[in-house]
Amino acid sequence: MSAQTRELGHPTREEIRLEAVLHSLSDPTRLHIARTIGELGTEVTCSEIEIEVSKSTSTHHYRVLREAGVIRQTYQGTAKLNGLRRDDLDARFPGLLNAILNAADVPK
Amino acid sequence: MSAQTRELGHPTREEIRLEAVLHSLSDPTRLHIARTIGELGTEVTCSEIEIEVSKSTSTHHYRVLREAGVIRQTYQGTAKLNGLRRDDLDARFPGLLNAILNAADVPK
Repeated sequence: MSAQTRELGHPTREEIRLEAVLHSLSDPTRLHIARTIGELGTEVTCSEIEIEVSKSTSTHHYRVLREAGVIRQTYQGTAKLNGLRRDDLDARFPGLLNAILNAADVPK
Repeated sequence: MSAQTRELGHPTREEIRLEAVLHSLSDPTRLHIARTIGELGTEVTCSEIEIEVSKSTSTHHYRVLREAGVIRQTYQGTAKLNGLRRDDLDARFPGLLNAILNAADVPK
């Protein structure tokens, strides 16, 4: 597999749409993933975040977050690293990410 | 029809769930409705907000917003009045509603 085919598609900052961000985070599992990455404050592999779904469902959830512009996924060797696109989201929708990540008593 | 059966169901402040709020506002038509009510800053009837969908789809969108806790619907005679539950949302999820309503360049 060439380096090129391993590039994952991400919207540019300007392409990030509010509705897609809200939709991606309206699912409890995806919200948990985003909150956990936010709490860890670093890039993490998918296996570092505990979610009780199948591998394919997990991959789907990460892809929805990536395609919405909420996370950036990059390859490091064979592992995918996931980081929050905090700068991009803060620039596009000031205050939104913090309001969502800091919301109290959201069940995990 | 008695007054009682005309009461519409609303979640209490404590029952409002972040995922439901995000889901309700992840639809462009519902986002437009909420933003328009927010801009008008008062209670409005459904007919005051222009949306290009059928009557039944419109009713569905308003119900989703109501059941998520984003708007409060009350009867005034035969008309439904719609108001944003700004106090409840600000108390539950500080900064969230403003971040969403103030988000720039969201197509209507």
